[in-house]
Amino acid sequence: MKKAINPLEKFSNISEYWSPVILGKLNDYHLKIAKIKGEFVWHDHKETDELFLVLEGNMKILFRDGDVELKAGELFVVPAGVEHKPVAENECKILLIEPAGTVNTGNTKSGLTRENPAWV
Amino acid sequence: MKKAINPLEKFSNISEYWSPVILGKLNDYHLKIAKIKGEFVWHDHKETDELFLVLEGNMKILFRDGDVELKAGELFVVPAGVEHKPVAENECKILLIEPAGTVNTGNTKSGLTRENPAWV
Repeated sequence: MKKAINPLEKFSNISEYWSPVILGKLNDYHLKIAKIKGEFVWHDHKETDELFLVLEGNMKILFRDGDVELKAGELFVVPAGVEHKPVAENECKILLIEPAGTVNTGNTKSGLTRENPAWV
Repeated sequence: MKKAINPLEKFSNISEYWSPVILGKLNDYHLKIAKIKGEFVWHDHKETDELFLVLEGNMKILFRDGDVELKAGELFVVPAGVEHKPVAENECKILLIEPAGTVNTGNTKSGLTRENPAWV
């Protein structure tokens, strides 16, 4: 039976910060969710834009030329090849949309790199 | 200056039901919003999946083999080539993500067909 997806209900499956899981696909794009808190690493995605949508809480995306603040219900598309660093003072829940296979830290290998997110 | 997009704030630019406007792009995909009420037409998109995310209110997507109910915060991806008919008893605000150029009524020409959505 077909059923809507409620992204916020899927967070019970997530324990680790900055570790996206996949909840659906749109053609060759993946819909992912992640719980974030603290500072991510500076990185970019050479080949693709990346959509951030905040589901709960607040976050910032730092850029070399200024920051973007996002609260629940707001979105931002980071253009391909643009260095950025997501940060969240308090726990924040986000939805990400980007081509399948996009690695969370882009070309920056780090302890936070997650190459093959699980499906939830 | 870079700034987050708040999709709900963009609805003040929309007067007509079932008439999507574009608020952003993700690679060659468009992010669109639409205000819907009543019944749309049965149609499909042969070449692409289509993401529905409900921002405010409730809607249903009717399929030939059953319906999907969506409330605010929920999403559903209609697979390519699958006939569907969106309906909303009361006014509902939605976000759509699909490749640029995707026509709202797919291959079904109708008085509701909107070929070239405006940007907001």
